[in-house]
Amino acid sequence: MSQPDFEKRGGLVPAIAQDARTGEILMIAYMNRAAWEHTLKTGRGTYWSTSRNELWVKGDTSGHVQHVQEIRVDCDADAVLLKVEQVGGIACHEGYRSCFYRRVEGGELKTVETKPRPAAAR
Amino acid sequence: MSQPDFEKRGGLVPAIAQDARTGEILMIAYMNRAAWEHTLKTGRGTYWSTSRNELWVKGDTSGHVQHVQEIRVDCDADAVLLKVEQVGGIACHEGYRSCFYRRVEGGELKTVETKPRPAAAR
Repeated sequence: MSQPDFEKRGGLVPAIAQDARTGEILMIAYMNRAAWEHTLKTGRGTYWSTSRNELWVKGDTSGHVQHVQEIRVDCDADAVLLKVEQVGGIACHEGYRSCFYRRVEGGELKTVETKPRPAAAR
Repeated sequence: MSQPDFEKRGGLVPAIAQDARTGEILMIAYMNRAAWEHTLKTGRGTYWSTSRNELWVKGDTSGHVQHVQEIRVDCDADAVLLKVEQVGGIACHEGYRSCFYRRVEGGELKTVETKPRPAAAR
């Protein structure tokens, strides 16, 4: 067994992207087999967009690509962890470093991160 | 909006548990509304077991409970990040610190972590 069990959950497994340097969790998305194979082949974080129903090479439109440094698979082989270099330092489509920019505080969701100043993608 | 959108993906959202101190990703599981509310109410990492179809208070049988330090919700409100103190230092049911103990190397999955020496749960 050298890949996730894509059948287990109907073809998709969750994939976490973590900043390889800082350990910060950047985002979570889903992979199907095609996204997994594209990630392995190209070294770029690639997902399956469940909203657009298409292969999603992260950064293809924004320039904020992810260079994959390391790939982990969990004990049940139904989740993936990508340790990445996040180009531009921005993973979230809303302009934040991480999609997890809101914290639960007193029963509300409070934004606790600031948007980095946009820079040209390297 | 002060909670995840549980309807979006059929009642469940993925929930990542991250070591609040080291940033290490410990595991990923799923939450339904009941698991979310139990987590908020008790401060203990609580999930919905998709294999047993029941509420799963992490550590109830193993002693390896998770004391939740912080809860984040992502931009699309369909994923949760728990920053936790992992009692016993072991999150994986196989005895590893993290469920992501295998790395993809040369097309194979290679175990790259060692199991901590079991200790009595505090």
